[in-house]
Order: sequence, then C-alpha cells, then structure tokens
Amino acid sequence: MVEAPGFEAIQAARTRIAASVRRTPVLRSDSLDEALGARLYFKCENLQLTGAFKARGAFNAVLNLTAAQAARGVVTHSSGNHGAALALAARTRGIPAYVVAPRTTPATKQDNMRRYGATLQLCEPTLAAREAAAQQVAAATGATMIHPFDNADVMAGQGTVALELLEQVPELAAIVCPIGGGGLISGVAVAAHAVNAQIRVLGAEPAGADDARRSWEAGRITPVAQPSSLADGLLATIAPSTFEVIRTQVQAVGSASEAQIVAAMRLVWDELKIVIEASSAVPLAALLNGSLSADGQRVGIILTGGNVDLQRLPWKQD
Amino acid sequence: MVEAPGFEAIQAARTRIAASVRRTPVLRSDSLDEALGARLYFKCENLQLTGAFKARGAFNAVLNLTAAQAARGVVTHSSGNHGAALALAARTRGIPAYVVAPRTTPATKQDNMRRYGATLQLCEPTLAAREAAAQQVAAATGATMIHPFDNADVMAGQGTVALELLEQVPELAAIVCPIGGGGLISGVAVAAHAVNAQIRVLGAEPAGADDARRSWEAGRITPVAQPSSLADGLLATIAPSTFEVIRTQVQAVGSASEAQIVAAMRLVWDELKIVIEASSAVPLAALLNGSLSADGQRVGIILTGGNVDLQRLPWKQD
Repeated sequence: MVEAPGFEAIQAARTRIAASVRRTPVLRSDSLDEALGARLYFKCENLQLTGAFKARGAFNAVLNLTAAQAARGVVTHSSGNHGAALALAARTRGIPAYVVAPRTTPATKQDNMRRYGATLQLCEPTLAAREAAAQQVAAATGATMIHPFDNADVMAGQGTVALELLEQVPELAAIVCPIGGGGLISGVAVAAHAVNAQIRVLGAEPAGADDARRSWEAGRITPVAQPSSLADGLLATIAPSTFEVIRTQVQAVGSASEAQIVAAMRLVWDELKIVIEASSAVPLAALLNGSLSADGQRVGIILTGGNVDLQRLPWKQD
Repeated sequence: MVEAPGFEAIQAARTRIAASVRRTPVLRSDSLDEALGARLYFKCENLQLTGAFKARGAFNAVLNLTAAQAARGVVTHSSGNHGAALALAARTRGIPAYVVAPRTTPATKQDNMRRYGATLQLCEPTLAAREAAAQQVAAATGATMIHPFDNADVMAGQGTVALELLEQVPELAAIVCPIGGGGLISGVAVAAHAVNAQIRVLGAEPAGADDARRSWEAGRITPVAQPSSLADGLLATIAPSTFEVIRTQVQAVGSASEAQIVAAMRLVWDELKIVIEASSAVPLAALLNGSLSADGQRVGIILTGGNVDLQRLPWKQD
C-alpha cells in the first residue's frame, strides 16, 4: 500500500522541483474579506505551469525516477490537469508520457494535455476503465505508473504549496483545499502541521462528489456511487493512503452546491481578476455557505487550477 | 499648461504611495513567447487595487493635497477606472470624490466607481461635456480637479509602475503601454529612460482611436473625430503635456483592429489565466500584428486593468 510522505520527503520535493515550477503569487481582496468577515489569502496555483498545482507533484515524481525508469517513460490516468503536468514534466526530462483520460474530459483539458506532449488515450469515464487502460499501457511500454494522487512522490510535491504559502503568509490559522482524490490535501496537511501543529487544515468538496466528507464523518472510505459536478477535477474517490491523512490530520470537510460553486467562481474572477476553474472555487463556496468556518481568522485558500473553456462559461451572457 | 513630471517627482510618488498601493506580480508564458519569438513580461496592474494602474496616480494626487485642499474633496471626469481609483484614494483620506462619467460608461465600471464611494454624475459622451460638468462641480464644491491624465501628480504616480517593473525584470529592452490620454506612457517614459536611456518605450492604440499614433507621425496633436473601440479606457485624446513626452520619448506607436484586440485579450485569459479588459490587450495585439516589433528581445507589457463585465464578454459562447 502507498503511504503518505513525511515532512522530510516534502522538503526534499521542494528542493527537487525548485528550478522547474513557479513560486505563485498570493492575492487578496478587501471586498471578499468583508463578505466573509475574515482575512483570506488566495494561493494562485491557477498561475502555476500548465495552469494547475499538479505541476508540483508531477515534476517531483518524474525527477525522482532513476535513469533506467525514466527511459521507459511514464503513464497515468487523469481528468486533465495531472495529465498535462505529467506530460510537461516528462517532456522536460525528454521522456514519453502516456495519459489515459475519460472521453468526457473537456476538450480544453484534452488539448492542454496534447500541447504539453502527452500521448493521449481516451476511455470510458469510470475509475475501473481508467485504471485498466493505464495498466495495459504500462505493461506494453514498461512506463512507470504515476498515479494522480495515490503516489507518495506526487503527494509530497503537492505538499510544497503549503510550505511556500506559509512562507508568504506566516500567520495563517487555517488552510482550505479542494478534495478530489486527496493528494493535495494530504501533502498540505503533513507540511502545514510540521510547520505549525495548531493550523487547521480544511477540505472542501462539491455536494455531488463528497466522498471525502462522508468518509471523514463515517471513519471509513465511503464512495459516492455517481459523482457529478462541474468541478471536473474533483470527481475522483479518495484512496486509502490519502484517507489516512484526511482522517487523522484534516480538521473538517465542507461542501457546496453547484450554484454556490459557480457563484464563488464568478466572484473570484470579478474580485481577484483571475481565471479559475470550478474546482478552485469550492473552498470559497464552502466558506460562504457556512459549511466551513473561517472564524474571523487568517485563512489560506489554495486556488488549484485555471483551465477553463472560455467559450463554455457556467454563467449566462447578456 | 501642465508639465510632465521629472524623475524626482516619480521617485517621490513611489515613496508617497508605497503603503497604499500593491506591488503587482509579473507573469509570463512560454507559449506566448513562442508565438512572438520574444520574451514577454506582463506587469499585472489588472491585479492592482480597484483593478487598474489608475490607483497609482490617484493616490499620488490625493496624498499630495494640502489639508485645506483635501477638506473640500476632489473631482474628475473618467470613463471608469480613474474614477474608481480616485474614489478609493479619497475614501482612504476621508474626503469626498465627485466623478463625472459619460452615460455610455459600462455598468460594471459605473458600479465600480460607486462601490469605492464616488458621487457619480453622468453626462453626454463628449470631452466637452465631461469637462464642463467637472468644472461645474469644482465651482460648486471647491473640490480640486484631478484630471485623469493631464496632471503632473497623476502622471508621476503612473510612472511608478515602470520603476517597479524594472526592479522585477531589470534587463528589459522595451516597455509597451496602451495609450488613452497618455498619462501612463508619459510617466513610464520619463521613469524608464531615467533608469536606462536605451530602453525603447512603445505605445499601442486601437485603430479606431489612434490619435497618439497620428500625432506622433504628424509631429502635432491630431485628434480622431469619433474615437470608437471596445477598449473603452483608450478613447481619450492626448493632451499637450502628454504629447510632449510622447513626441520626444516614445520610440514608436502601433495599433490594432478590434478583432485583433479581442483575440489578444482572449489569448491572455487563456495563457496567463488572468482577467484583463480590452484596453490591456492592445499592446500584445499590436506586437502580434507586427505594428510594433519585439525584435526577439525582453519586452515588458503593462496590463493596465481587469474591469470587465463577465456577462458581456466579446467572444461567443458555445
């Protein structure tokens, strides 16, 4: 079984990927602070290479391969952002990247994977189909499987975002992350608690894909039968490795409806003047609807990605 | 006649506004660099307070008033961003701000001015009507007129963006600014040439409002009879004070069509993951269409603002 990384692995990841990924800015807004009665710091991983935090985990995993492993390439399954990040990391190291994606993946995200050099293979939109297709590619090519979240190097890479954020804004009382498969929040929880044991690490999910919230409450992995949300990066089910961190190191998991997610997404575009995808808006939506509490404190929010089809926005044009 | 500020005035402005405005990030994109065959650095004043660089000039002007002047408030005419910035600067100093705006000002920009506390008065969309209405308010209230560009304190404040950019990216060969009334490019040209006499300072305008380009070529102010563009921040005609700087310190002025501006705007949203208004896209559009040349060098582009009505985007939704 995969185990979540320790703090040393996250520190090592930071050094390993330092020259490859961006130190993203932190933005804030007086009017968002007023709306919530707290002080919010938005960590802009939508401005990260490939438009998502996934570059951190992907570069860490690819750069940590031996030369012999690297020569045979890497393979993964992804709903988009991890696939693009893995393709860029692989191209940077000069090795092939094979990505299996559900055929329901938005065209923008498919294009994004191809432009970074992924050899893309579409499959049925089920976890079983994704995993079977990726295993098949791995067997045929000898490529190393780099799972989008159930992988210690990937989790360690994602955790570097918390180290960076806590340097940029040292006195945070809480950090809120969206949860898909749980790779981001696992790395963030380990890193943040190593820096400050008192910090609250909070998760946020779409109400239509709230397996982490259900699992956290039940104390065991509780999948959602048909996860559904326009936050297409958050449909995955957590793994045993990520659930173990969520169960022991995440202080609360909140959720938000589709309408609340769209409203929060648009609010961020309007107030922060940045493009975020729906998945990135879920933490703010869960704070605004009271499902999570900011308690009037300094709260960091990880904006996970900005890969949006600008011709298919989820709000009406006049 | 108003005279453009010297370098000392711009340095003084920087100190005066340092605690009031944001140091905005600089973003870049490999794919935009490839598209242009140069190295582009985007200075994100869309992420500035009030969503535009105008906060720099407005704070400098308001903070430079004597207590007696300040007590009577400030007045201006504005198509939106300067009015919002002046309102915020005035509110911060605890004084009233009266803003005259053409009735054609987009609703988003009218709302933006009101939310920062402006007392708004609409007028006919002509320069004569704007100036007459503003003079009337000034006479009635004793408020100090803070012209959106034909004002040395405003130009000096805008020039601080170049000082900041040249600290963030020291080795720029050129800086490109959009030109409306010319306040930004005047401050930028004085500041940039004081730091590095060799730097090229380039202007860019919508083809439908290219009075600066015509004036630069003719050697005298040459207004456009009916300026028209969706880059609504760039419709003003340059003043004698700004033209004097443009004539002597700007190395080229380019232009772009409406379609080119929209394409460049969308490209920035897609590649940089930030929201910019049409006016901000004109420099990139003028580089992409060859009207200005980047010469394969390091080029800074000032993204001037991000105040957009998200329900009225200038491209089609599927």
